[in-house]
Amino acid sequence: MESDVFEIISVGNELLIGKTLNTNAHWLAKMITELGGSLKRCTVIRDDVDDISLAVKESMKRGVNWLILSGGLGPTYDDKTLLGVAKALNRKLIIKDDALKMIEEKYEHMVHHGTLKKVKLTPARVKMATLPRGSRALPNSVGTAPGVLIDEGGRKIFCLPGVPAEMESIFRESVMPMMMSVRRFYHEKSVHIMGILESDLAPLIEKALANNPLVYIKSHPKGHGEGMSKIEIQVTATAEDISTAKKWVEDSLEQLKSMIIENGGMMDKESTS
Amino acid sequence: MESDVFEIISVGNELLIGKTLNTNAHWLAKMITELGGSLKRCTVIRDDVDDISLAVKESMKRGVNWLILSGGLGPTYDDKTLLGVAKALNRKLIIKDDALKMIEEKYEHMVHHGTLKKVKLTPARVKMATLPRGSRALPNSVGTAPGVLIDEGGRKIFCLPGVPAEMESIFRESVMPMMMSVRRFYHEKSVHIMGILESDLAPLIEKALANNPLVYIKSHPKGHGEGMSKIEIQVTATAEDISTAKKWVEDSLEQLKSMIIENGGMMDKESTS
Repeated sequence: MESDVFEIISVGNELLIGKTLNTNAHWLAKMITELGGSLKRCTVIRDDVDDISLAVKESMKRGVNWLILSGGLGPTYDDKTLLGVAKALNRKLIIKDDALKMIEEKYEHMVHHGTLKKVKLTPARVKMATLPRGSRALPNSVGTAPGVLIDEGGRKIFCLPGVPAEMESIFRESVMPMMMSVRRFYHEKSVHIMGILESDLAPLIEKALANNPLVYIKSHPKGHGEGMSKIEIQVTATAEDISTAKKWVEDSLEQLKSMIIENGGMMDKESTS
Repeated sequence: MESDVFEIISVGNELLIGKTLNTNAHWLAKMITELGGSLKRCTVIRDDVDDISLAVKESMKRGVNWLILSGGLGPTYDDKTLLGVAKALNRKLIIKDDALKMIEEKYEHMVHHGTLKKVKLTPARVKMATLPRGSRALPNSVGTAPGVLIDEGGRKIFCLPGVPAEMESIFRESVMPMMMSVRRFYHEKSVHIMGILESDLAPLIEKALANNPLVYIKSHPKGHGEGMSKIEIQVTATAEDISTAKKWVEDSLEQLKSMIIENGGMMDKESTS
């Protein structure tokens, strides 16, 4: 399903100096997968116009249909995402009335609540309404900077803020409804096993996959020494309907469990999600 | 310092379906920064030979000097990192004696401790010793699969396991000592402020940077409503010696603090790291 291909670009020096753990990409990955999309890559780059532009161009070249950027939409000098996106797509940056109105309303709200004396559209505030030509501003219920949607020849580019609550809110309100066209269903189930080495499990997984190539099976070693450690096996599938995805996962897992027991392994605790 | 440019490539479907949070990249980013390296990009890709090969080729094209991959070195069918790296660099995969010896010793150790009956070099185990031609195997004190170092025309490519304890141990034992040539010192300090909006802080940061362009200043809004929220300001610098890096950070921060107070803001708690 090539039309379901997603990529994420996370923008921010704080992610590359090891200050901030990239929980935004993790949250987005989970949501995209649960909604039936196929996330192929996540890229983390610095607050640098050329780095942002290059990353966007590379994603477009790889044929992504849904590109989600997060971070770098705020009022400060190092919020450069829209500069980079505009450069990549060869679009001019213009002050958009819909975005400016959203921002003005945010500051009016602050004046109303007494946290600000007077609305003044300073250059730093107008910056948040300066979007690549042809963009649509997406309302931000939590913070100030609007999200941005650009349609590039039928491929969608979303720019979301880096503050997690703002990113999540714009994703839920504006990105999710558009993803309804994806309509694919994802199911996963994991089992925990012990008493078998990962290197002895390897040929069993290959056999299970040969029998059912529509699922994906992955082993995750848990703990230190391979001999003493437990292994988590995760089986996943994406299908046109949820019952098919579930059936594929269950059938494959049952087959794998039998082979593991035949080869001296045993089940530990079991978890489904 | 172009010779200090690092990139990370994290390999694993579990990272792109939102199952696993990418703490490996976070740990590596922190270590690289503390050791004076400059991490420009982190890429997360699936367990797919073509995706791995493409990501490595793209990194090399961007001119990276130190490329660190993590994940995909184990014995199972979906451990494909070395296949992808070999493809990208146009090198054959061969069974390396040094790697095979390391793996054999691990299994002998298990036999000695009674967790395995007999050492048998199955195809899945030999797979972990099958490395791109010209590789050096790096000892893994914690797990079984050796790390891999490839010198590609003076540029270093490290392949580390995805299990965090194994990755960290090989990084400390084999990557860190080689990074001593980098010899750059990083310093950072953060202050927490309140009573000023981020959009009003923006021009003050620009002024502070104009006065001292050798530092990097970044504001991180904390909390929900912009009017009520606190802001963390982080000032960082990398220099030839630690006292210079510290001086740049301190000078810039003092200047910024004065401007914030002049403009109605105030200091909250302060933290240094």
